[in-house]
Amino acid sequence: MADNQHPGQSFGESEFLRWLHDSMPISKSALVPNGDDAALLSTTDRGVLVATDMFLDGTHFLALQTTPELIGRKAVAANLSDIAAMGGWPQSVFISLGIPGNTTREWIERLMIGAAATAREFQCGIDGGDTNSWSGPLVVNVCVTGSPHWRGAVTRSGAQAGDCVLITGKTLGHSLETGRHLRFRPRLQEVRWLMDHFKIHSMMDLSDGLATDLPRLSDASGVGITIDAKQVLGIAPATDSELQAALCDGEDFELVFTCSKADAQTIVKRFPFECGIRQIGTVTAGRGVKIIPLTGEPASSLAVQGYEH
Amino acid sequence: MADNQHPGQSFGESEFLRWLHDSMPISKSALVPNGDDAALLSTTDRGVLVATDMFLDGTHFLALQTTPELIGRKAVAANLSDIAAMGGWPQSVFISLGIPGNTTREWIERLMIGAAATAREFQCGIDGGDTNSWSGPLVVNVCVTGSPHWRGAVTRSGAQAGDCVLITGKTLGHSLETGRHLRFRPRLQEVRWLMDHFKIHSMMDLSDGLATDLPRLSDASGVGITIDAKQVLGIAPATDSELQAALCDGEDFELVFTCSKADAQTIVKRFPFECGIRQIGTVTAGRGVKIIPLTGEPASSLAVQGYEH
Repeated sequence: MADNQHPGQSFGESEFLRWLHDSMPISKSALVPNGDDAALLSTTDRGVLVATDMFLDGTHFLALQTTPELIGRKAVAANLSDIAAMGGWPQSVFISLGIPGNTTREWIERLMIGAAATAREFQCGIDGGDTNSWSGPLVVNVCVTGSPHWRGAVTRSGAQAGDCVLITGKTLGHSLETGRHLRFRPRLQEVRWLMDHFKIHSMMDLSDGLATDLPRLSDASGVGITIDAKQVLGIAPATDSELQAALCDGEDFELVFTCSKADAQTIVKRFPFECGIRQIGTVTAGRGVKIIPLTGEPASSLAVQGYEH
Repeated sequence: MADNQHPGQSFGESEFLRWLHDSMPISKSALVPNGDDAALLSTTDRGVLVATDMFLDGTHFLALQTTPELIGRKAVAANLSDIAAMGGWPQSVFISLGIPGNTTREWIERLMIGAAATAREFQCGIDGGDTNSWSGPLVVNVCVTGSPHWRGAVTRSGAQAGDCVLITGKTLGHSLETGRHLRFRPRLQEVRWLMDHFKIHSMMDLSDGLATDLPRLSDASGVGITIDAKQVLGIAPATDSELQAALCDGEDFELVFTCSKADAQTIVKRFPFECGIRQIGTVTAGRGVKIIPLTGEPASSLAVQGYEH
């Protein structure tokens, strides 16, 4: 990886690149792994999924207030979550670094160890990337490739009126305060089980909060969605401030998806994973996202309720 | 693209994302284009090439001294050059942005217009990415996928003793002073012709200068390489300072490759492209890179000659 030593690089790059070459896991699908101008990955006739996300010091993490391992973990895990949201399984991870001039090699190696451990958990390799020193704060860009399920990719645009809306996990909100945004586990095994046994109509991961993300799914599918505040809260106390956190905090990295009512009932009954799963609403004809408030009054628009991000 | 509006974003993102959605070219291989959690791309049974490079203000460009279009152009072109160096053809471009807080939407749109124009030149789409505002300088990360040639991918490790070493372009060096590092044209058409008609044994693109890049090729292949200073200089005046620039400046983005002597003679005779091509040396048994100096004295080690990057 990191074949391009661009002008301006100063920290012990050549040792770092050698260390990377010796330490990083290589994916099984890498026909030509890192160290060349590009990696060559084997694919199936179903094509390849590609997702990318950039993580910036001060915005997505605070380099001085967390460990480098957790920064590496989060950057990889958030990208793996995007592959999960398409119903797929990840293969190869590519990591580009913009490293502040005063960073030690040991600190960056710890970041890469966190990234590699997360990749390994899901049988992925770190198959390439790019390393640069600069005068700005830490930047970590991750690009991940994945393999679609044999049923195909699940998009945001397949929700159908009559579907149930389900969500993984026991609760939403407070991800930043609790550090969950650094430690969450991408729902890959859960998705594989769902895809193997059921027909998932539409899916996305929750990065910005239900109040922002659900309208994207409803718009992409051209349907309406009605959610129930009590079901959204899961195990949290049923207060308006908890509801606000659940809808708006973001960085939950849980999956929200829709499927038929019959499938939803079986999924909720048989879901074998610790993270839990629950129904939070239904897909309707029409447009827009509505919410049944905690008081149980009739559903009204999420935007009118003031929950828009 | 850019589905993740992370915390900390402030400039007119939703309008920008809508503009991107309406303005960016989509590649022919995109089965699910940007706007979902990941893109789904069709591939052949030869697999997929993946390259990534990060471009940082102050290191790879100076945001205040160049146009945003040229920054977008360079970021895409350098990645396309990596696909060319593998003997492949690019498909899909993914662009992640870290945008300084005071940047106008118009400026960033111009950057993306430059990126899109470069992608279109080579029949690629901008099939995804990620947009973020932050307090640091401009960051542009590009990831590109490509399709290998039917002959397979060309790596750095296939050079054979007896091969000739060839290079595209008329001259090397001074890329930063002349602005060529912003305006260079990736050698994709040239590579397609080479791959269609000849057996290229090894190849890479010149991003750090011959003195840095050739030892990588020689190490990866386990061979020696001897280059001739006069041939390296091409059309430049044959002075030692020009030689230093040609070997060490970097950011040339020309291709260096090796093939049999018979193929090399035909290539030099029949090469139909304006950029030109020439032989600069030969592959030998043994290890290390040597250079025949301008004086015509016997070849000595490039490192001993002081041309190491």
